[in-house]
Order: sequence, then C-alpha cells, then structure tokens
Amino acid sequence: MNKETINRIRKFTSDRDWDQFHSPANLAKSISIEANELLECFQWDENNYDIEAVKEELADVLVYCRNMLDKLGLDEEEIVNAKMDKNETKYPVEKAKGKADKYNKL
Amino acid sequence: MNKETINRIRKFTSDRDWDQFHSPANLAKSISIEANELLECFQWDENNYDIEAVKEELADVLVYCRNMLDKLGLDEEEIVNAKMDKNETKYPVEKAKGKADKYNKL
Amino acid sequence: MNKETINRIRKFTSDRDWDQFHSPANLAKSISIEANELLECFQWDENNYDIEAVKEELADVLVYCRNMLDKLGLDEEEIVNAKMDKNETKYPVEKAKGKADKYNKL
Amino acid sequence: MNKETINRIRKFTSDRDWDQFHSPANLAKSISIEANELLECFQWDENNYDIEAVKEELADVLVYCRNMLDKLGLDEEEIVNAKMDKNETKYPVEKAKGKADKYNKL
Repeated sequence: MNKETINRIRKFTSDRDWDQFHSPANLAKSISIEANELLECFQWDENNYDIEAVKEELADVLVYCRNMLDKLGLDEEEIVNAKMDKNETKYPVEKAKGKADKYNKL
Repeated sequence: MNKETINRIRKFTSDRDWDQFHSPANLAKSISIEANELLECFQWDENNYDIEAVKEELADVLVYCRNMLDKLGLDEEEIVNAKMDKNETKYPVEKAKGKADKYNKL
Repeated sequence: MNKETINRIRKFTSDRDWDQFHSPANLAKSISIEANELLECFQWDENNYDIEAVKEELADVLVYCRNMLDKLGLDEEEIVNAKMDKNETKYPVEKAKGKADKYNKL
Repeated sequence: MNKETINRIRKFTSDRDWDQFHSPANLAKSISIEANELLECFQWDENNYDIEAVKEELADVLVYCRNMLDKLGLDEEEIVNAKMDKNETKYPVEKAKGKADKYNKL
C-alpha cells in the first residue's frame, strides 16, 4: 500500500475518533469477520462470483490489516519478508513443487 | 507492499508450481484460515499476546491477500481507495465520530 | 446432544475451573477458530479430506456451541426452531427450490 | 438436538432440493461464515451484545453443523465423546486447572 492510501486510512480513523475501538483483539476479530464476508462470495459456487463484491470485501480485509499494522507499530515489508524467510525454509522447492501438502506432511 | 516483496511472493508461488491451487475460492478460504490463526492469539486473553505469533499470522493474511490480488489481476490501491470512497460516505464524520455503530444504525 | 454428553462437557469445564474464560465473546472467537480448523480440512482439495480430522474439528465446534448455550442459558431446540421459523418464511419452497441464492436475491 | 428438530432441518433441505449444494466443503465454509456473523455481535464491545442476534447466529451455526453431520453420516454423540476422550487426556485436571494455556504449553 502506498503512503497516500495509508494516510487516507489513518485520517479516516482519526477523524472519527475510532482509534479507541481498535484494540489488537478487536482488529483481529474484524479481519476474520471481513475475511468471511469475502468467503461468502464463494459459499455455494466457487466459479461464479460477484467480482465487485470480492473487491470490496478484500479491500475491507486489507484496511483492517493496515489498522493492525499501525496499532502495533509494525512494518508490512518487515513482517512479510520475515515470514517469507520461514516459508522458504519450510517449503523447499524440491519437496513442495506441485504439492499442496502442509510442511509437516512433505 | 513494495515491488520487491510482491515479486518475492510471486516467485515463491511460481517456483513451487502452486498457482494451480490458488483458485480465488481456495485463497478466500486461506485468508479466513490465517485470520483465525491470528484471532487465536487473542482467544482467551486480549491483553497478553505473543507479538511474534501475531506478526507471523498477520503476515500470512497479507501474503494470501497478495496472492488473491494477483490471481484476480486487481490493484491494491485501486480497490482500497474505491472502498474508502464508500466508507467515507457511509460513515460521515459528524454522525460516526466516537461511535462504533454500524452505518445502518447511525 | 443428549443429557449425558452435555453433562460430560459441563463437568470437563467445571473440573478445570474454566468457566472464568468462557465469556460469550471468547466462546464466539473459539467457535470461529475451530470452524476454521474444520475449513482447513478442505483448504486445497474439497474432495479428498481426512475424515478423522473433520470429525474432531466438527466436534470442537459443537463443544464450544454447547459452552455458549450453557453460558447464556439458552435452549438449543428453542433457538434452532425459532431460526427455522424464520428460514421457512425467508425461503419459501416455490421460490427457493433448487436455487442457492440468498433470500434477498430470490 | 432432538429427533423432531433434526427432522425439521432435513425436511427444510429436501423440500428445497438443496442437498446438491451441501458438499462437505461448502458446509465447512458455511459454518465459518455463520460463526463470524456470531463473532460480529462482539466485534467492538464484548459486554453489550444483542442477545436476539446472538441466538439467531448461534442457531445458524448449529443448523449447518447438523447438515454436515447428516451429509457425512456422523453421529453427534459419537464424535463429541471421542473428542472429549482426547480433551480429557490432553488437559489433565491437575495441570490445566484455572489455566487457559494450550495443551502443548502446559
């Protein structure tokens, strides 16, 4: 997310004095709730989905993730790259290629 | 997310030939599953959480969101700003300030 | 769930002095967390799943639902039948037959 | 759930010819989606919740759990008691009493 979009989200929250509701736990609940509104787009038919609804729900997930990064003072690049370090170790190409198995089953 | 991190995620997927598993529906499930691993950090105690676990699980959510943006050819800035347009209309500052009510209750 | 099973769950909780953790909000989180462990059984392949894992995760959802019924003093038959009354009205057979549409799209 | 309520749910499904949509994977998604509508009752305030909404959403979770039990030919008492056997072993009273730790941290 670029700086301008991040600032827009921060201003949206602060203009409404909503930081008081944004405890890490409440944001974790919110990410799950929005993730499930996204999942609802694929509830009964995985192939025919309303792309406009998907875009909105995915955006909601991303906005709450940004709120959580801000709340905890985390850097997105840093935590994602640290996790990718782990993923690359847990799923070596030669073992994981073409397989959807969890790392402990490889 | 910057271009370098995005490319790292894309390479991780393509090196393992995992694009075949990344249907939009499977990614929606994955976002929800990881969101709930994040929620688990706050399951019984909202104030004492393992910040290292939080960072990893939030990163997992963000990686799957990136996979979904890629799969559907979406631009993160575009969908987030389109949603913020809606949010700003649904939650006018003068009505929403300091209140956690849903827009239809304001 | 029969009375014997319900009592076993209640005794499990009281023996461990866990009622203190079972706020309605914590139980709602727990139901979602377990529902997503169940969902994980179908994450990448909807047709080949580990039935033993499915049984365990579905049981976990049911146990936390029972904890919540107990915590709130609710009767399972009563709330399920009240909801079925609504469902039958929202989804009249002649309109809903063979369609997966949400009631507001019928 | 008693036999009468179970039969009502089964008739509701068969009258609408909805069994075709009730794959185990779709039901797992549905349980998660409804669990998150339940969680939404506690999103911003864990202590003030709409009990009527809680009753409806918890009922929705229970109905989809029943659908899944039926779909997979599972017996609720059997799977719950098998899981309680495991829980009692994983969480011995003397170790777990008064603690919300996960079994692998006890």
